[in-house]
Amino acid sequence: MADMQKAVKWYPPSYDIRVEQVPIPSIQHPDDVIVKIQLAGLCGSDLHIYRGHEDVDAELIGGHEFVGTVVEMGSSFGPDAQGRPELYRTLRLGDKVVSPFTVSCGECHFCRVGFTCRCVHSILFGIPTLPGGQAQYVRVPKAGGTLFTVDSVVATSADVSAPELADSSLLLLADILPTGAFAALQALQHAKASPMLTARPYPFSDFVPGVENSVEAASAPLLDEDRTLTFAIVGLGPVGVCAAVSLFKMLNDVEKATGSHFRIIAVDPNDARRAKMEKIAKAIQVPAERFVVADIPQAKQAMGEWTNGIGCNAILEIVGNNSALTLAYELVRPFGSISSVGVHQEPPLPFMGRDLYNKNVSFDFGRCPVRAMLPIASKILVKHQAVFGTIGEDISLIERVVSLNDAAESYELFDKGKCGKILFDPWR
Amino acid sequence: MADMQKAVKWYPPSYDIRVEQVPIPSIQHPDDVIVKIQLAGLCGSDLHIYRGHEDVDAELIGGHEFVGTVVEMGSSFGPDAQGRPELYRTLRLGDKVVSPFTVSCGECHFCRVGFTCRCVHSILFGIPTLPGGQAQYVRVPKAGGTLFTVDSVVATSADVSAPELADSSLLLLADILPTGAFAALQALQHAKASPMLTARPYPFSDFVPGVENSVEAASAPLLDEDRTLTFAIVGLGPVGVCAAVSLFKMLNDVEKATGSHFRIIAVDPNDARRAKMEKIAKAIQVPAERFVVADIPQAKQAMGEWTNGIGCNAILEIVGNNSALTLAYELVRPFGSISSVGVHQEPPLPFMGRDLYNKNVSFDFGRCPVRAMLPIASKILVKHQAVFGTIGEDISLIERVVSLNDAAESYELFDKGKCGKILFDPWR
Repeated sequence: MADMQKAVKWYPPSYDIRVEQVPIPSIQHPDDVIVKIQLAGLCGSDLHIYRGHEDVDAELIGGHEFVGTVVEMGSSFGPDAQGRPELYRTLRLGDKVVSPFTVSCGECHFCRVGFTCRCVHSILFGIPTLPGGQAQYVRVPKAGGTLFTVDSVVATSADVSAPELADSSLLLLADILPTGAFAALQALQHAKASPMLTARPYPFSDFVPGVENSVEAASAPLLDEDRTLTFAIVGLGPVGVCAAVSLFKMLNDVEKATGSHFRIIAVDPNDARRAKMEKIAKAIQVPAERFVVADIPQAKQAMGEWTNGIGCNAILEIVGNNSALTLAYELVRPFGSISSVGVHQEPPLPFMGRDLYNKNVSFDFGRCPVRAMLPIASKILVKHQAVFGTIGEDISLIERVVSLNDAAESYELFDKGKCGKILFDPWR
Repeated sequence: MADMQKAVKWYPPSYDIRVEQVPIPSIQHPDDVIVKIQLAGLCGSDLHIYRGHEDVDAELIGGHEFVGTVVEMGSSFGPDAQGRPELYRTLRLGDKVVSPFTVSCGECHFCRVGFTCRCVHSILFGIPTLPGGQAQYVRVPKAGGTLFTVDSVVATSADVSAPELADSSLLLLADILPTGAFAALQALQHAKASPMLTARPYPFSDFVPGVENSVEAASAPLLDEDRTLTFAIVGLGPVGVCAAVSLFKMLNDVEKATGSHFRIIAVDPNDARRAKMEKIAKAIQVPAERFVVADIPQAKQAMGEWTNGIGCNAILEIVGNNSALTLAYELVRPFGSISSVGVHQEPPLPFMGRDLYNKNVSFDFGRCPVRAMLPIASKILVKHQAVFGTIGEDISLIERVVSLNDAAESYELFDKGKCGKILFDPWR
């Protein structure tokens, strides 16, 4: 390897992107791996730094989405790494890998229980202390806990003869596809959805071994009509589309397994986003009677018609601002839940305690534990490669692949909403 | 029956309690039942009306907690009531019954799925349009869905030779014991508690049939130490004590069934409440190494020591104001949940979206579905009669039983915090 590489650097205070020659990273800790980047993403949250909204005062190499191959491994890797995450024994030079957008050690309490995004060693790629993936090489700390091999993507898919996955689609595993899948899963896992899945009324005790309810006929039995789950997705940007595709797949699987039914309302005020969602829904053969793409008034109308006005069972909130949360509250039924993966900022929540009490609302906020979600996300990726993999097609989430040399222009276009998702090929 | 009865009436705008002769209620709808009251409770939430905080501008008969016997039934009751809640066929004159504090029909979607407090016919006892239980007789609408017989209390308890239950303890089933049990169950049912119960890391798919995770060793296996649930209860008024006793019983049952462990931090700034909680904990033999009664600084210290500072798995918030919610947020760990049954009022929530995102916090807000919780609450009642049943003892939740004639004085003493929970015996 040469000593120097090309990288995209951001300079404070804002809007200053330069492409520079910088040293190739080296192993700093035995758990490190150096990855040669094949593709790196430009993500909406890179814009927070770009615009100077993150209080960062030092220059940095940006980017937290990347796919690449392992070119150097620290001394922790090898057959002797017993009692550590499997990858410390099994990772090989040349393996193709995907990384979540944050580091997770795989060994702390949070990692062991699967809440990998709150790892005690968690650190985001693309900040001054951990250079990001918009470069030719990147150093991955705690790599045996953090990385996911492409062999695993294929192995976790139900289809053993899965086609080869394009690098452009694998890149979506770093953040947006697992985040969308997490939004969907979180809503489905909520106890308040369980009566519809199990046909047993609350407070069924399935979730809590040892706490048994009695069979006691308080109410009339559940009817088939009670078992229809109506979900809404608020926000149809790239993560919202990932959430919609994930939710559709999960609800289909759930329907087959449980006999429940479902309908989905996909909401965005932006015409172009709705048009893309429509095309994708058609491409993945979502039946029109179960899936409506709606602006805000249409969403309220669909909720009214599909639920007799009682509201949706759950809302996936993928925007990260208070108007999205307010719409979610309006659309959700009493004893419904709001799964919020939007990155919220400073303003206080727009709810009075009384509103939440009176509707028995539940919220699940926060960041996706990407590393833990990768097996589930991989299955969705393999099933829907057309949406996730192709570049520049009508239904693709990726608009184009450019050289690192185009970084400044790309950040500017993306910041101004003049282009969709862009990937960097650092060897172009 | 005579035509007239004695009742406690509240007059607007506030603090005006009178004991009057009023007509005995009669059947107004075929689903109605008339109950002869044996005991009626004075509850903290009666004080909201007493103080004039509820915007009520008409006089009313107060009280939403009562136990009594059935003295008249509407024409819906009888052997022909097929396809309706069981009680329409099985209820008999003379049956002793408990009523949740709100009506639930047992036949709408919300009742069928078990979310009975959000019944489409829900109406609170003790408002101008539905006279309450602080009287000699009360009319119960939708009684086949609403009422719970004392035979059911005994039948749902594990102990078939359960001792006779005092009316004073049965009365607690109307509101505070199910509400405390609901706060506990909601926290245990949250998906984020599941790794500790099942020893499987997130995103286990147990809750969502058809959505399977793969066995893929991202992280090191769960350790025994990961399986300790540390819960905190914020607020040790009567509902908080019910929550503590319920949580202790449930966590004991869960421990036996799953091999998980637990510790509980019970928090209140009020010395007298903490002293009572200490006595109750001793009486029900809670091991001191798993249960600490704490003021706020002590609670933070206990959280720090017991969890290495990462925070509690779940918080039961039983107060209903923003300082309690703020403390709950401080005590909860990333990926923890807050089960809030406190009756919140107007101020906006004290959280910025960013705070909730950054900690992956979950909230479950709202009113207990009492009717649905009664089987579980009954088991807890039978097991812990000493706490719930006796009157005036050190460990009892009930301080005294008085005549309806003492209503004005009782409201005043209770409002000023000069006495604990008071019950009315309308025949004294």
